[in-house]
Parts: sequence; C-alpha cells; structure tokens
Amino acid sequence: MLRHVLRVDQFTRTDVERLIVSAAHMRTIAERGGDDRLRGRILATMFFEPSTRTRMSFESAMIRLGGRVITMENASETSSAVKGETIEDTVRIVETYADAIVIRHPVAGIPERGAQVAAVPIINAGDGAHEHPTQALLDVFTIQQELGRIDDITVALVGDLRYGRAPRSLAMILTLARNCRLILVAPPGVEMSPDVLDALASHGVEYRAEIDLVAAAREADVVYMTRVQKERFPDERSYLAVRGQYQFGEQHLEVMRPQSIVLHPLPRVDEIDPAVDSDPRAAYFRQARNGVFMRMALLDALLNSSSTLA
Amino acid sequence: MLRHVLRVDQFTRTDVERLIVSAAHMRTIAERGGDDRLRGRILATMFFEPSTRTRMSFESAMIRLGGRVITMENASETSSAVKGETIEDTVRIVETYADAIVIRHPVAGIPERGAQVAAVPIINAGDGAHEHPTQALLDVFTIQQELGRIDDITVALVGDLRYGRAPRSLAMILTLARNCRLILVAPPGVEMSPDVLDALASHGVEYRAEIDLVAAAREADVVYMTRVQKERFPDERSYLAVRGQYQFGEQHLEVMRPQSIVLHPLPRVDEIDPAVDSDPRAAYFRQARNGVFMRMALLDALLNSSSTLA
Amino acid sequence: MLRHVLRVDQFTRTDVERLIVSAAHMRTIAERGGDDRLRGRILATMFFEPSTRTRMSFESAMIRLGGRVITMENASETSSAVKGETIEDTVRIVETYADAIVIRHPVAGIPERGAQVAAVPIINAGDGAHEHPTQALLDVFTIQQELGRIDDITVALVGDLRYGRAPRSLAMILTLARNCRLILVAPPGVEMSPDVLDALASHGVEYRAEIDLVAAAREADVVYMTRVQKERFPDERSYLAVRGQYQFGEQHLEVMRPQSIVLHPLPRVDEIDPAVDSDPRAAYFRQARNGVFMRMALLDALLNSSSTLA
Repeated sequence: MLRHVLRVDQFTRTDVERLIVSAAHMRTIAERGGDDRLRGRILATMFFEPSTRTRMSFESAMIRLGGRVITMENASETSSAVKGETIEDTVRIVETYADAIVIRHPVAGIPERGAQVAAVPIINAGDGAHEHPTQALLDVFTIQQELGRIDDITVALVGDLRYGRAPRSLAMILTLARNCRLILVAPPGVEMSPDVLDALASHGVEYRAEIDLVAAAREADVVYMTRVQKERFPDERSYLAVRGQYQFGEQHLEVMRPQSIVLHPLPRVDEIDPAVDSDPRAAYFRQARNGVFMRMALLDALLNSSSTLA
Repeated sequence: MLRHVLRVDQFTRTDVERLIVSAAHMRTIAERGGDDRLRGRILATMFFEPSTRTRMSFESAMIRLGGRVITMENASETSSAVKGETIEDTVRIVETYADAIVIRHPVAGIPERGAQVAAVPIINAGDGAHEHPTQALLDVFTIQQELGRIDDITVALVGDLRYGRAPRSLAMILTLARNCRLILVAPPGVEMSPDVLDALASHGVEYRAEIDLVAAAREADVVYMTRVQKERFPDERSYLAVRGQYQFGEQHLEVMRPQSIVLHPLPRVDEIDPAVDSDPRAAYFRQARNGVFMRMALLDALLNSSSTLA
Repeated sequence: MLRHVLRVDQFTRTDVERLIVSAAHMRTIAERGGDDRLRGRILATMFFEPSTRTRMSFESAMIRLGGRVITMENASETSSAVKGETIEDTVRIVETYADAIVIRHPVAGIPERGAQVAAVPIINAGDGAHEHPTQALLDVFTIQQELGRIDDITVALVGDLRYGRAPRSLAMILTLARNCRLILVAPPGVEMSPDVLDALASHGVEYRAEIDLVAAAREADVVYMTRVQKERFPDERSYLAVRGQYQFGEQHLEVMRPQSIVLHPLPRVDEIDPAVDSDPRAAYFRQARNGVFMRMALLDALLNSSSTLA
C-alpha cells in the first residue's frame, strides 16, 4: 500500500483509517517496551533544517520497533549538499546505508524529488511552508483518540495559516472527513492560501473566516493553535505584525465545551498560556506522544513486509 | 530509591556505598561485553552546552546495558529552545520519546526545573558552575577503587575551585566521608565559595587553604587537578590571571607517597605534564573509564525495576 | 592481522585479497538483513571535519554487524579539542567508551598519532590531503567486482590529483596490482605529487600524464573521476582555475569500451553529467554501496576475534 510518505493528498480515507487503527495498536506495543519487528532495518534521518522534536520522534518510533537509526542532525551544514551535491545524488547514496530515509528540508518539493530516484521509502518530515504529512496524520489520530471520531467535527485553525505547514496539512487531510467544518482564525496577511481553500471547497468542506478566538473556542470541537514561525516570514516587520495576536488562555477554556480539546503542533512560544496545561482539554502533550505511535505505524507499513498495511 | 539525579546532597552515605558496589559490578558486566537489562529502554541526551565526553560516557553506559539512545548534541542551536520553548515544555515532549533524559545546560537549576514536571527520570549532567553530581559519584568511586576506602583520606583540590563544578561537587560528596580532610589550592580570586565551605564546616570536614602545590602533593592521598575553564570566566583578563598557575609535574610526583593518586575530570590543557601519565599514580584515565561504570549503575538504578537500588 | 587502519601502504597484496573476499561475503550478509557478530561492541565515530557520507557508511557497516555506534558529528566544534585537548588525550578517553574509533581530521597524521597511544583499533577516515585508506580499499573492491580482476588494468585518474586524497590513496594501493597502468589526467598545478610518483616507479607501475580525457576514456578500463575540492585549495582563485576543467559526459561514454567503468568517490558537483548515470558502465553508486561492505569487512577484521582476518 505505502511506498513513500510525501503529501497528505496521497492518502485515501481507507488509508487514514487503517493507519489510525495501527497507531492505536502501536501505543500498546510501545507501552509493553516495544518489539523487534524492524530488527535489522536502518532508518536514516536527514534534517536540512533543524527540528529536534520531529527527528527524535521518528528515531524513537524506529527504535521502539527494534530498528536502528543513523542521523544527520544538521545536514545543511555538514552534508555533501554544502559541496554542491543534488538531492537526487544524496538519496542515491544514503539509500546504500539505510532502508528508509526521513527528509526535512526548507525547500518545498525536495522530498518528492528524492523519491523520484529512490529505491527505498522516503518520508517527508516537512518541506518548507509546503507539507508535513506525518504531522497531519498524528493530528487526525489524536482527534480520533480524543473525540472518538474524525467525522462531524468543527475544527478551529488558529494563527499563521499561510506559512504554517501544520495547519495547511491538517486542513488538507480533513477533506477526507465527513461533515467537517473549519473555522479559520488568522491575523491579516497570513490567511489560509487559495490552493487549500479550493481543495476544501471541492471536497465540500464548509469553512469560514473568524477574527474572534472566543467565538471560535465556543463553537469548535478542536481548537488547533499554531506558533507564528519567524523563520517563514520574509522580514522582521511582517513577523512582528502577526506574532502574539492570538493567545489561548483561561478565558477561552471557560467558553469551550467539556468534550472539546486544544491542540498545538509544538513548540509553543506564547500562543497558549501555561495555566491551560493542567486542564484535561489541553491535549497537546498527548498529541506529541501520539506522534511516536503514528510514526511507528508508518514505519511498520513502509518497512515490514508482513504488515497488514504493507 | 532513586527518582532523579540532580544534586550531590540528595545522596546519603548508604546511597553512595550502594552505587559504588553497583558500579564495581558494572565493570565486570562491561568487560564481558555488556548485557541486556535495559533492553527496550530509551535514553535521550540533551546537551545545551557541548560536552562530547560526558555525552559519550552516558551513551556508552546506556548501550552497554542493552538500551538505546537518541541524541541532541547541540541542543542550544538546533532544539526548540531556539524558538523560545521553556525547559518544562521541552521535558514534557522529550519524555514522550524516551524513558530518561540527561540534561546539560549552561544555566544553574535548569535540570531541577525540568524534573519538577517530568514523568521520567532526569539526570543533571552539569548545570553551569553549579553541580555535576555524576562526576562527583564517579570521583568517589575512583577513590574507593584506587585507595580501597573513601574515609580517612586527605584530598587536595587544585585549580579553579569557584567556577569549577567538578571540585565543588566532589567537596560536597566528601561531606559523607568520615575523617576526610581537604586542602584547597586555588589561585587568588577563584577560591572555593562560602556555600561549600559552610557545608564542609557543618559536616565536620576539616579543610585549609594552601598555596604550595608541592606541600599539598606531599600530604594528600588524592591530588585532584582541574582545568581552569575559560568559559566560566566573565572576561579574558580574569581568565589569563588564573590559568597555568598550578601545573602538576614530575617534581610533584617525587614528593607524593607511593599509594597516593592524581585525578583530573579531564579534558586537561596544561594542568598535568604528559610526563606524569606513565606513572602508576596517574589515575585520571582510569577515572574516565570509571565514569562509564558509575553511569551504568545510575541508569540501572533509575530504569531497571529489578535493580537492588531501584 | 589487522590492528589499525591508518595508511594504504600498511596492507600487503594478501591482506587486500582477503579483505576483498570478506567484503564480498559481507554483501551477502547485508542483503540478508545483517547479523550479530559484533553484538556488544561499540564504535565511536569522531569527525573533526564534516563528512556525512563517510560517517554514515561506517555507522551503517557497524550496525549491520550487530554493533552500536556513538557519534561525534562535529568534533572540531563540540569536542574537548576546542578546550585545547590533544588527540592523544582524546583517544585515551574515547577508548574508555568504545571498542574502536574512526577518526577524520583535517590535519595529516592525526589518526596515526592517536593510534600510537590507543588500546583499541583506530581507523583513519581521511586525514587532510594525506590518506583515505578505506576509500582505496573500497575502490579496489569495486574494481574487482566490476572487472573481475585488479591486475592487468589501465586506470585513468582524473581531476585534482594533488589535493585529492582519494586518487592519491587509490594510486598507492594499485602498486599492489600486477601489470597496472595509470593515466594521470590533471589540470596544470594539481598534478600528482612526486612522493606518489616515486612509489609508482619503485613498484614498477607504468604511468603517463595525459591532457585529453577522450583519449584516456578510450584506453582505460577504469575512469576514476574526482571532485575538485574547494576546501583543499589555498585560495578562491587557484580553485576556480582548476574547477570544471574535466567533465565526463556522453561523448566519453561513446569511446569507452563496453566492459570499462566510470568511478567517482562522490559527492560530485559537475564532473560527471547526470545523463551518464543510466549507463551500466556508470558504477559510482555501486561503488558507494561497496563502501559499506568493505567497512563491514574491516570492522569484522578489527573487532571480531573469530574473524579469519583477525
């Protein structure tokens, strides 16, 4: 079934359902101390843009299934890319060292270029402001675990929706849900891009812009907060105009329904008041943990020939 | 017994004795090629200040017990801390990837802040000029192995005793020894701080300042040399005033007793003449090796529920 | 037989033949998912000069034999070398963490200095413009695999032959071959150094300089292209004068014999047109893969006491 993980739109509804079931099973395996199903298999992680969190999440997932990892933590400075090597050459060489390759890169489309020449699975761990498919998968897994469903839900996406690949990718994957409504809460200038809005429209996903976070919190089953990522902005001034405009605090918890949840791809800066952390609806640390389980499910599907997903 | 490793003063005499016994046993295990008692367990090493030596020592210890490691070698530059994340958030996320977390940080108290929110054990691998408890434990383990006792000893601490966390931490742990005398040999301006002297006094540890390294070497069972750490000084001038003031050479070996030893937390710059290395009393490379065994003992106590120390 | 891997000239013809046989066997082991012969053994990789490719190749080799790895990816910035530690001290400490140490260093002779004090095997993974013995071994292994022999061959070495340690090391190891002829195709100013030419002469290896790459391609069994390494040149101007002077393209394929091959130590910049990649004579990605097998053979010889090469 699964050859590479490159874009959200490569997945069907059935794929996502199976991955959710598998990720839930991986939680059990992880809680028993892991297993050895990927014994002898090697995962290479190549981060051309630092992201300790995502890298460690993949490495922890691989290790928990008995596999091993070789790491390029700071590929943009230390790899042959500095010497002028193309991503195609890099992939053709690294695949001689490893059975699968995770790539994060600041330039959109680089993992797909790698996949076109690769003999082993390529996993896109974020390419510029473009896609972050494993984040989208762990997000819907978290919604399923927390709400018991991914259909019939209202999701408020809050913050920088233009440069943030996490809300972009989540919006895209929610086109697979039935009867899903999106509330888009973005500062002026960083609204969701037309390409995502078109995809929502063509899949019949209802959405509306909203400027009031309180109103969104009152209505939503899921409030998805995001960091305004300085590194995605062209200059300091456009960053400062946006940062800190939406902050989730106790006043928002007050109007939220008891079964609703707050998510955040993390790290946060000041988008969520730490006072919120102790509320059971604050699900963002559980969301981080789910990332390991979803990545275990993906690695199993990609590397384990006896996987039901393979 | 052991939940975190944060400060020297968290350990009782009995704790230290048990850890010494366990570390000695770990030497045997390591010499047999290790075992699998920590199979399936994951250690995360997070170094917000580079220290290849300490990081590798922990990783070697974990691996030798069958565990696995995920690494942040240069956390201050690549981790989410750059994006403004608090240590509390970092710990709450990394604990979803790993079963224990080693933290080195340039700011005193950061590992303890992490431990306050952590669901997994936190190990302080050095926080600023504050504490380095695993160094202190490996130092007393080495003294026990080399001299056959940790009581009834005279220890000369030499070098920068103010900014050096190794001599600070060793002095603190020696308050648990009986009939221990300290000779403090420090250049002017970097003498041992009053808080440590108060702790020595209140535990009845006899100490005196000494300016003559030859006199100290003649008298001591253990001469503990330390590097003057440039990075701990406020400016170049105060560093240069101190560096190189005490250098251990063959003239000091000559006056030392045959059973006495020279230790150094390493790396050294010019504090010990390489001509000393071949003398059997030069115990600093054996001390480095003991660091792996003591860290095996600590990881066993923290992570192995069937450990006699758990 | 093998204690360290430091220089090409430490190997006899018999050594090389045995390593080639062992590397071919390692390919089979790797294709079966590896084995556990180095279980419990630890390899430390210390790169004082970044080389993701070589580091990953060694780490993949170690892991495939069941061993474990501890890594210093950026040793020149993060290790105790910054604090002024000598390589001798570094080796004496790292050998307490690991059973073998791979060293890459920008300064010629550093791995040999380390080996003089080491209790564990040291592997030179490239020291300045000096030697790169494991590259030479994987190159002759590739020649054996591709041509079926290492004797009676004509090898064209192309590019920067002065600063490039790969062509230097390959030329040196080919002094062990019988009836080997070298064609040296170098831009003016970066011709092969006299010390290598002397070694060739004293071993009866025939060689000649050639300025026409087409002529060389027509005649050679092996065309060994190399990157002009900017970092080896004293200044930008002398680099630009040389770069891009020899580029292998389809016009060279046309004149090459059907059984001849093109090699490159990789990464390439523009020395080989990507259009060449799909030709079966383009053997450079197979060469990269052979690097893992040869390093498995070397690690086995160094660390496995029951190896036929030990």
